[in-house]
Amino acid sequence: MKQVAILGSTGSIGKTALRVIENLKNDFNPIALSCNRDVEQLAKQALRFHPKVVVLVNKENLPLLQEKLRGTGIDILTGQEGLNKIAEMENVDIVLNGIMGSAGFSPTLAALRKGKRVALANKETLVSYGNIVMDEALKNHTEIIPVDSEHSAIFQCLERRRKTKVKKIILTSSGGPFRNRKNLSNVTIEETINHPVWRMGRKISVDSATMMNKALEIIEAHFLFDLPKEKISVVIHPQCIIHSAVEFLDGSIIAQLSNPDMALPIQYALTYPDRKPSLVKQLDLQEIGTITFESADPSRFPALSLGYRAIEKGGTTTAVFNSSNEFLVQAFLNKKIPLDSIVKITKNIIEKHSPIEYPTIIEIEKAEEWAKMEAANYIKDF
Amino acid sequence: MKQVAILGSTGSIGKTALRVIENLKNDFNPIALSCNRDVEQLAKQALRFHPKVVVLVNKENLPLLQEKLRGTGIDILTGQEGLNKIAEMENVDIVLNGIMGSAGFSPTLAALRKGKRVALANKETLVSYGNIVMDEALKNHTEIIPVDSEHSAIFQCLERRRKTKVKKIILTSSGGPFRNRKNLSNVTIEETINHPVWRMGRKISVDSATMMNKALEIIEAHFLFDLPKEKISVVIHPQCIIHSAVEFLDGSIIAQLSNPDMALPIQYALTYPDRKPSLVKQLDLQEIGTITFESADPSRFPALSLGYRAIEKGGTTTAVFNSSNEFLVQAFLNKKIPLDSIVKITKNIIEKHSPIEYPTIIEIEKAEEWAKMEAANYIKDF
Repeated sequence: MKQVAILGSTGSIGKTALRVIENLKNDFNPIALSCNRDVEQLAKQALRFHPKVVVLVNKENLPLLQEKLRGTGIDILTGQEGLNKIAEMENVDIVLNGIMGSAGFSPTLAALRKGKRVALANKETLVSYGNIVMDEALKNHTEIIPVDSEHSAIFQCLERRRKTKVKKIILTSSGGPFRNRKNLSNVTIEETINHPVWRMGRKISVDSATMMNKALEIIEAHFLFDLPKEKISVVIHPQCIIHSAVEFLDGSIIAQLSNPDMALPIQYALTYPDRKPSLVKQLDLQEIGTITFESADPSRFPALSLGYRAIEKGGTTTAVFNSSNEFLVQAFLNKKIPLDSIVKITKNIIEKHSPIEYPTIIEIEKAEEWAKMEAANYIKDF
Repeated sequence: MKQVAILGSTGSIGKTALRVIENLKNDFNPIALSCNRDVEQLAKQALRFHPKVVVLVNKENLPLLQEKLRGTGIDILTGQEGLNKIAEMENVDIVLNGIMGSAGFSPTLAALRKGKRVALANKETLVSYGNIVMDEALKNHTEIIPVDSEHSAIFQCLERRRKTKVKKIILTSSGGPFRNRKNLSNVTIEETINHPVWRMGRKISVDSATMMNKALEIIEAHFLFDLPKEKISVVIHPQCIIHSAVEFLDGSIIAQLSNPDMALPIQYALTYPDRKPSLVKQLDLQEIGTITFESADPSRFPALSLGYRAIEKGGTTTAVFNSSNEFLVQAFLNKKIPLDSIVKITKNIIEKHSPIEYPTIIEIEKAEEWAKMEAANYIKDF
């Protein structure tokens, strides 16, 4: 039985991971759980799954958690140190990182340093610290298995195939909720967080609406699969049935399909290279009937060009991209800027940025801070 | 450089194989070519590719071939023995078997016995002699690589993945030229050999029109991938872009896509597990735009049920299926029976047949003869 530490167990990825693990009960055990502040949910999960340790990152509600877990023998850790501790705990085999934002980086690095498999749902880790974590995985003979649907699809299509034989990868995109809308200056928050296919958190929903999500995925794929930007393409596929594909040198395309359900990439990141029956509803192609593809026109989706541009400038630029976007999404959700300004402002910040090649962690953090300050300056103008 | 013997080099598969080899010129050399009777074409190919040996199966035009190849130093062999000889020739690495009908079996067996890779486009070998050739491949630590588009697709999707993890394979079918036509009793030969996607010989075109082609493929897949009939499904996909797919235990489907062009499965059977740039036009999903799937309704396509039934009865039944169909296709092309009688008569013959389990080659040949006699009896009634 493999021991899994779930970082962010009360979030959407974490909850699905627990359903997946419950379904595979004799194969995996959630030995450690963590959340930021949702003590009610964390305590409920702990009482059901009996982990050895839980981590509460935000200490505010610690007394409440202590009370709820009294007499269970479950250890309680706190803060970012707590996350790092469960990520490197001796008997943990797999760290499932479902944390949002840059807090996800440090435990990923800790886990990789101990040679553990990281099932990674945290985009920021790869976008901002891509070279650092990929090098660390290589050095410790371990691997990062992607948990989002697109990169899991590519991982499955590539599986044990030689990367040198790849002509290009094809990331699919639903096109987001505004695929057929030209002017994004006046969309509301409510319209934005209403994704046509996937149920997601607010941040990702905004990213999906601006297509910055797909730009982040382009950058992720660049690091994860070690591919130049010329070998990463995007096609709009509104039904989200083909989750992504790989075109090989000979013109053969291998694609991965399923009903859209995060239970599948989460499970695969745990069971790989094995496969087990899952909770995912079987895909019936004849019931689906029709699937379509459209051009991911850069003039319609300027975020995509920005993703490529960030790779091209390189070094700290992808961290700047991510940080600027993170800051501006919050500004949009706080009604400080219109939706389409997220891409426009990030573009300006990227162009202004003087990247540092092969940056250290501290240089990346500094670049992220710089990007946020720049973004804050732009917001003043609205 | 790998040496390839091409059986049936003047046919559609053989000609495409030569184009493929020419394009990969430093990797493969066509050391031996063969044809049934098209001496003009064979001589042309020999003068262009300078094989060591050519085989003329039908000796009738031997003097003409001798004259055309005089002074070239190219050896000429004849008859079925000639085919077997090039299949087991010492310096041949790969035997590409593009021969139509049961003549293809014996050289396949000869090649496998010498431990050579067989790139197999000859359906009959697997349908009638499936157990025998698969056992022979296993015994000699070699492999049969399928050359038709569907089985090549499945082979590519499975590649090095564990077969025990397969929930089912999904064979795609264009539905043939009469997908939307209910009554097939009055279709003409001209209508029949007009396939909507693939350019093919007359026999395969008739098989495609009756969907016996797909039934043969179901049986082929059963032997080639060692799967029970319950794990083989068919879906109608008129655009022929997804060439087939594999659904794994966890609900993940891996599919292979490309523009329909036999150059791809032929090349892959040669280069596997490697891949090289090919002649195939790059597939552009956004240009394709829409792809569709429909149910392969057994009441609409009775041939499919017949394929499953042949597997179920087992033993010599699949050989009977193939032989009856081969005979009746000829009868249709000779205007002796209407198109829909091919399936109806074969159904009766299969039900009447008393199969022999684990048959020898001679028992299979006898069953094939019996099926032809039965079919001939039915034809008298028209």
